[in-house]
Amino acid sequence: MRIFANIELIKPNIMKKFILLAIICTVAAYCRSQQALWNNGVIVSPEINNNNTVTFRLNAPNAKSVQVTGDFLPTQKVKTPFGEFDAPGTADLKKNEHGIWEFTTTESLSPELYSYTFLVDSLRINDPANVYQLRDIASITNIFIIPGEQTEKYQVNDVPHGNVAKVWYNSPSLGLQRRMTVYTPTGYDDSKENYPVLYLLHGMGGDENAWSELGRAIQILDNLIASGEAEPMIVVMPNGNASQEAAPGETSNGMIPPTIRLPKTMDGTFEASFPEIVNYIDSHYRTKAEKSGRAIAGLSMGGYHSLHISKENPDMFDYIGLFSAAILPDNQNSSPIYSDFEGKLKTQFEKKPALYWIAIGNSDFLYDANKEFRKLLDDNGYPYEYHESPDGHIWKNWRIYLSQFAPRIFKPQK
Amino acid sequence: MRIFANIELIKPNIMKKFILLAIICTVAAYCRSQQALWNNGVIVSPEINNNNTVTFRLNAPNAKSVQVTGDFLPTQKVKTPFGEFDAPGTADLKKNEHGIWEFTTTESLSPELYSYTFLVDSLRINDPANVYQLRDIASITNIFIIPGEQTEKYQVNDVPHGNVAKVWYNSPSLGLQRRMTVYTPTGYDDSKENYPVLYLLHGMGGDENAWSELGRAIQILDNLIASGEAEPMIVVMPNGNASQEAAPGETSNGMIPPTIRLPKTMDGTFEASFPEIVNYIDSHYRTKAEKSGRAIAGLSMGGYHSLHISKENPDMFDYIGLFSAAILPDNQNSSPIYSDFEGKLKTQFEKKPALYWIAIGNSDFLYDANKEFRKLLDDNGYPYEYHESPDGHIWKNWRIYLSQFAPRIFKPQK
Repeated sequence: MRIFANIELIKPNIMKKFILLAIICTVAAYCRSQQALWNNGVIVSPEINNNNTVTFRLNAPNAKSVQVTGDFLPTQKVKTPFGEFDAPGTADLKKNEHGIWEFTTTESLSPELYSYTFLVDSLRINDPANVYQLRDIASITNIFIIPGEQTEKYQVNDVPHGNVAKVWYNSPSLGLQRRMTVYTPTGYDDSKENYPVLYLLHGMGGDENAWSELGRAIQILDNLIASGEAEPMIVVMPNGNASQEAAPGETSNGMIPPTIRLPKTMDGTFEASFPEIVNYIDSHYRTKAEKSGRAIAGLSMGGYHSLHISKENPDMFDYIGLFSAAILPDNQNSSPIYSDFEGKLKTQFEKKPALYWIAIGNSDFLYDANKEFRKLLDDNGYPYEYHESPDGHIWKNWRIYLSQFAPRIFKPQK
Repeated sequence: MRIFANIELIKPNIMKKFILLAIICTVAAYCRSQQALWNNGVIVSPEINNNNTVTFRLNAPNAKSVQVTGDFLPTQKVKTPFGEFDAPGTADLKKNEHGIWEFTTTESLSPELYSYTFLVDSLRINDPANVYQLRDIASITNIFIIPGEQTEKYQVNDVPHGNVAKVWYNSPSLGLQRRMTVYTPTGYDDSKENYPVLYLLHGMGGDENAWSELGRAIQILDNLIASGEAEPMIVVMPNGNASQEAAPGETSNGMIPPTIRLPKTMDGTFEASFPEIVNYIDSHYRTKAEKSGRAIAGLSMGGYHSLHISKENPDMFDYIGLFSAAILPDNQNSSPIYSDFEGKLKTQFEKKPALYWIAIGNSDFLYDANKEFRKLLDDNGYPYEYHESPDGHIWKNWRIYLSQFAPRIFKPQK
């Protein structure tokens, strides 16, 4: 009892110290990330107002000018040596009565996942009050979601959740251990059933984290499965850069800066090695290991990969999704994957895939290439389904396409 | 052949556009994240020089002053209303001949994982040239690793990798679906063996991502298992905030700002619910479901949780690790978990845990509380192992403690 009493004695002192630690951490967090105490509170940014206008705030007392730039603002034309392009617009923040820079959008924003950064005296910085960020290649931007019918699918809702694993597999053909992201739907672990598998491929500059982070694929699948719109399915998100073990920071190359310019991305190497991934999944998960239990879809370069992988393996996939696919001509210098394009496509369609689904934005720079490809399908009487959306080669479209495609697969077709 | 010919015709145009897209993305990435072309290259920051000095760079043409602050610099005293504290030091960057702000450390840095941010005219920002960041509660800092014997364990090396899953389990006692991080060692999926399990708990303000991100637990385990220093083991990293479903951004609460001040963190709730987690793991993984196959360890609040969970369940864990444990007195207002402390400890030690391991930094604010606790153990003749390190209540120590503790468990003791 003596020792216990000793502990009792030091009680108030320790408790005081621990509370103090909490205060210090909190103060430090304010100083570092939430910038400053303001009006007895921390700076809130972004603040989504009741009418879906959004207020951005920054405490930068020494700045001469502060702007916000992001895809929620009307685009502006930017001249570059390569031509004129649409770039995200900018808006000026003004110092409010508390000395805090502030801007509120004049219009209500339509439901979407938006990204933004600040420009402080022209220096691009992230919003210190918002820890929610996404990395796209070497750019990190802050994000926020305006709620609505479509974006409800992007949110973590109180529905049963699937599990997400970072899984390493051995690729003898590439001579690498490689990492992929595997989503198993709610119930998978407690069931004895076999599940269909969607292989979901990223674009150039992406990696095995792209669909689960930028694409909100986990939330989309959780929500579509919970509502009954999509069948419970496994979703496999591999790394489509054949020279890479894994996403930046997750490889034995060390913490090197990410780049879009990687070797062996669209030269047939990844397509040729793809059956290794399917074999790994079929041997390590309870899958419907047959054509009717497999779908493949991808965005941009991943659409190109999906096109070629499905045509090289005409008995492997019943559902093919090309999202803003980078339909490029065959590369003369590389793999036999790209030879006899029409002949192989003929074989694929003779075997009647259940769904060949194509979507693209009407201002996508790949619009014409996709139109040519659709003409080839039309002229040969190959059936496919086509969805055209506004906007161009952007994640907004790919999240929407996944939300549309996932409910269509592993079901009898209309 | 006509259609194929058509595709051939548009070839150069599409290819040109795709290359252009790559250029645009790259230019955009430069503009956004790597700031500016400089000397025909992008800005490299931080640059770890051959002698382990480090150079930081920032392109901020309009800034009046730029500083770097981080734990690689000597600490400085900061006065606050709560007293005087050690804070990370700062160093001034100077504009170099290219107009880029630059600072090189005067001394070689010793091997460690360091974190830093910039101060631009007093505004704290992250390094736009470095995508490698860690979030600690509401603060995001950049990181870099100086290589060395200890920090080799923190790197992704070319060794077989374990898989890491974000797993949802149902907690009837907390009335929540909750998320945890589960590491399965290399070989687990292809084996029929049962594996021992280390339960690894985070501190106040942390969550189920803390050990795998800030703690580099995945890399540490991969490397210790590859070298044969540690036994292959499952590592379960639950969320110790009993009011929380999951880490910020992963919950149905939406993207709310993270905070250290959560309800039900040290009131016995989490400790009482803990057997649910063990049951989930034992029923969903191939575990050695017995005392000799279970370890529990945690940092700070997680050390407190480990102490109480292991004493409440004296037949559950053979290996207990208290890392800078927040050994607080019993909370009168809460759970019976904290009652009869000495009696329950007696029962636990009568059952002879294989290893009771305590570590703390000599400048930790919890040093005295741990000393009192060790005195209680000494006075009762309860065997334990004690490690004292330099420094205080910081992640540097917790990464080291995990590197020391993991090789000691699931093995005959010295």
